[in-house]
Amino acid sequence: MNHSFQLNLKTFLERSTSYFPNKEIVSREPDDRIFRYTYAEFYSRTKKLANVLKTFGIQKGDRIASLAWNHHRHLELYLAGPCYGAVLHTVNLRYGEPEIIYTINHAKDRILFFDEDQLPIVEAIANQLDFIEAYVVLGKDVPETTLSPIYSYEQLLGQVDDQFSFEMMDEYSPATICYTSATTGLPKGVTYTHRSLYLYSSALLFKDVTAISETDSIMPMVPMFHVNAWGLPYAAIATGAKLVLPGYRPKVHQLLSFIESEEVTITAGAVTLGVEMVNLLEEHEYNVSSLRVLWLGGQAIPKAIIDTLYYKYGVPVVQGYGATETSPLITFLHVRKEQQQMDERGHIDLRTRQGTLIPGTEMKIIDESGKEVAWDDKEMGEIYARGPWAADEYLNDERSADSFIDGWWKSGDIATIDEHGSIQIVDRNKDMIKSGGEWISSVQLENELIAHPDVLEACVVAIPDEKWLERPLACIVLKQPMNEAEVEAELIQWLIPKFPKWWLPSQFTFLKEIPKNATGKYNKKQLREVVAKKEASEI
Amino acid sequence: MNHSFQLNLKTFLERSTSYFPNKEIVSREPDDRIFRYTYAEFYSRTKKLANVLKTFGIQKGDRIASLAWNHHRHLELYLAGPCYGAVLHTVNLRYGEPEIIYTINHAKDRILFFDEDQLPIVEAIANQLDFIEAYVVLGKDVPETTLSPIYSYEQLLGQVDDQFSFEMMDEYSPATICYTSATTGLPKGVTYTHRSLYLYSSALLFKDVTAISETDSIMPMVPMFHVNAWGLPYAAIATGAKLVLPGYRPKVHQLLSFIESEEVTITAGAVTLGVEMVNLLEEHEYNVSSLRVLWLGGQAIPKAIIDTLYYKYGVPVVQGYGATETSPLITFLHVRKEQQQMDERGHIDLRTRQGTLIPGTEMKIIDESGKEVAWDDKEMGEIYARGPWAADEYLNDERSADSFIDGWWKSGDIATIDEHGSIQIVDRNKDMIKSGGEWISSVQLENELIAHPDVLEACVVAIPDEKWLERPLACIVLKQPMNEAEVEAELIQWLIPKFPKWWLPSQFTFLKEIPKNATGKYNKKQLREVVAKKEASEI
Repeated sequence: MNHSFQLNLKTFLERSTSYFPNKEIVSREPDDRIFRYTYAEFYSRTKKLANVLKTFGIQKGDRIASLAWNHHRHLELYLAGPCYGAVLHTVNLRYGEPEIIYTINHAKDRILFFDEDQLPIVEAIANQLDFIEAYVVLGKDVPETTLSPIYSYEQLLGQVDDQFSFEMMDEYSPATICYTSATTGLPKGVTYTHRSLYLYSSALLFKDVTAISETDSIMPMVPMFHVNAWGLPYAAIATGAKLVLPGYRPKVHQLLSFIESEEVTITAGAVTLGVEMVNLLEEHEYNVSSLRVLWLGGQAIPKAIIDTLYYKYGVPVVQGYGATETSPLITFLHVRKEQQQMDERGHIDLRTRQGTLIPGTEMKIIDESGKEVAWDDKEMGEIYARGPWAADEYLNDERSADSFIDGWWKSGDIATIDEHGSIQIVDRNKDMIKSGGEWISSVQLENELIAHPDVLEACVVAIPDEKWLERPLACIVLKQPMNEAEVEAELIQWLIPKFPKWWLPSQFTFLKEIPKNATGKYNKKQLREVVAKKEASEI
Repeated sequence: MNHSFQLNLKTFLERSTSYFPNKEIVSREPDDRIFRYTYAEFYSRTKKLANVLKTFGIQKGDRIASLAWNHHRHLELYLAGPCYGAVLHTVNLRYGEPEIIYTINHAKDRILFFDEDQLPIVEAIANQLDFIEAYVVLGKDVPETTLSPIYSYEQLLGQVDDQFSFEMMDEYSPATICYTSATTGLPKGVTYTHRSLYLYSSALLFKDVTAISETDSIMPMVPMFHVNAWGLPYAAIATGAKLVLPGYRPKVHQLLSFIESEEVTITAGAVTLGVEMVNLLEEHEYNVSSLRVLWLGGQAIPKAIIDTLYYKYGVPVVQGYGATETSPLITFLHVRKEQQQMDERGHIDLRTRQGTLIPGTEMKIIDESGKEVAWDDKEMGEIYARGPWAADEYLNDERSADSFIDGWWKSGDIATIDEHGSIQIVDRNKDMIKSGGEWISSVQLENELIAHPDVLEACVVAIPDEKWLERPLACIVLKQPMNEAEVEAELIQWLIPKFPKWWLPSQFTFLKEIPKNATGKYNKKQLREVVAKKEASEI
């Protein structure tokens, strides 16, 4: 077999742009106009962008940064960068200034491509960016600014032609970099290679995973700075699917309109977005019948959401398990042959789980004594993963030694696995509550609390306890103001049939909102501070 | 990303056998008994087989040979061999003695595993096999024989335990070897690696290719000695699908019974088998409603067959293009988004073509002047292919230089490509008829001749002509005896509306059968000899 042929994004890019030249890419502009172009035009512009990178003197392996929403210019960077040989660092828009500065400096980014709405923050941090040589605004004009040198993306593309021949990169060449928040300290970087993106995108084409097809219309709601938008843009280009990119700070109603107008078949985003979509669908009518799957991730999905989407709107929710370190998926919903005859209730239950190991990867779930847990859905253990699209180190980071052992990534996530091999995340290791020597899962309590009709958000954290060392505290956001003592009594009654007595929260607190981190997940660290402050003020 | 994780058959094997331990493998024994066991039992036996190989002193990279039909023991060799580190050479049962001797010696095979029905030929050639150290009969007992040393497969497995830990092979390690018939001289060997089998099997899981799923029941009719049964066994094990292996010399009625009883969803084999299946379906009732696709290959599929299977039996025929050198697929039927609304006639027409380039591979169609042909379905050119599952050399063979150029495989097949990027094989380069400086496609003439209700088989070859240098001769097998002169006149009338006048065969000859080669394709070389002999006898 051909040993010299390298697994490459170029192969996907050139196949799809020649075999599906008229396939559309749809992108929402900052002024809400809908921009459309074809794969052929997209390809021409990626080659122009490669010529721009050349003009800047970018060399193979050099890093370039994006600070941008989901749109066609960002997509051009996604392909032109790695196929040119540059490494695209997609900076997390939702980070605070210290994290943005740290990650851009840590990656040694040479050019910063950014959306115009990010101008204030870029101006504020520019003098602390050590390696940036040029700024490029992802639009037509150069705004008034203190930044220098600064260029407009469209003007740069206008100055070059589209004659460029992408070469076949060594498959281990770095292609993109994403950072992930760390439990302690600053974010940690993960480098994706041509090989890992090729193999991971391929897995998204598998019938038994997301089954991405050329006939799909794919809308990544998940930000393009978050684990390569879960790989969807690369999978779309691998097979030639239509792409719908919802632009700057999309509102839920805009996302639902896009699903309707662009006949979106698969979309993916944070669980919180799914919840908001259901809320809006309950108020307004949108035609979402084109959707064959709604892929939600980032945290446990309330069963009520899965239920409503499935029974009321005919939209099957799917989920998997993974992280920045695993591209992200290593498991995904899989309805086994023997489960196909299940009743609808069974199908819903299956969708509350994180699914089955994807072909090509390896996983083990290890208990505290170091042995693999039984497939009884009771024994809990930490997930370890490895595979061709899983990381085995962080980018130039001493913390690698804590998270990677013999090529395995130690996830910090606690799970059970059932007799069918489908996993269920019980909690983050650090979010588990250890009460009297026994584990209580904050996630399981949250799932049941959020299923209560009066509850909008629920988050459970540990509080110190003299006798039991730790006890659960339930933080609740109500849909509307109510008598808190009555609600608390009602919620206790609600939980009693579902859990052992000692799992029931020892305390409730009612908040206006639960703080969330840059990727939309509950920020339990910050929540503990909010709760402490609230309690202090109440004393 | 993890640079040390190797693309390996072991990863697929261990995932499927632990996640789908109860999935069935069904195999027909020589005495027609149906043997069934589970993936868990299969895995246990592959580990036993690895221990047997160890006992024989087989080292990494050593070749072992199989001369066997499609059954579970052969499947055990498929996995245990490469995962142990040995290279499985699947010898073509249909070769003549010289080719069998040549390929076993050329591959330097150390052990020969063979089916009991092959005993006479193995005995006949044993003294000419240079490197074989042991013979293993794939059954329970050792027959009376002159071979020595000889063992029974089951007795060997009975002597070892199933404690064996497969290691992660370097992905470029050779895993299997198949030989392909050469236009001139002896067969040429192609080596498949762990990497190429991993990547090719993955492509069979793509929604837009064969969409192999764990929920499938897969029956390879294509022999396991023919390009790894087109990759189906490895794809089944990659995803955890049921496998149905039809055993020794399966009859068409047995294949149809298997489809019915094992609820086969996908099966694949030679076009000639498809024709026989249709003929038998017309006579007897079989329930083939479980079949979601019938994948036929090896030569052009008569439209009438596609038509009957689709309209009368609801079975969609699919095909692709490829060869031993390309694992085999590099293209496959793909119904594009904009083609989904076609009428049924359009869908049938699409299925007469060899389809669209599979993601991950590269193809170009080059005309005589060396430039790529237009996508007009008219310009003809030779297919060149390359990719991670395409070969770039033959095993220790000087003829490599004729077929591989700069990493591209030069197929010798002539094709056109339509505006949608779907290819149509026009002919083998060597089978094209050059009449008065213009090309005539023998395949296109054959397709139309075989569509005639009186014709069972049709094969067109070139005969020398003083004026035009070459002219087409049509060799016809009739369904029943008829007046040949009348049929000839009728067939000419049949062809007139379909072709330019100068394409019409200059001569017809009526035969009892068309000679076929070891892979079931028309053997035009032998046919020319038959025709020459017939003509000589008629003078």
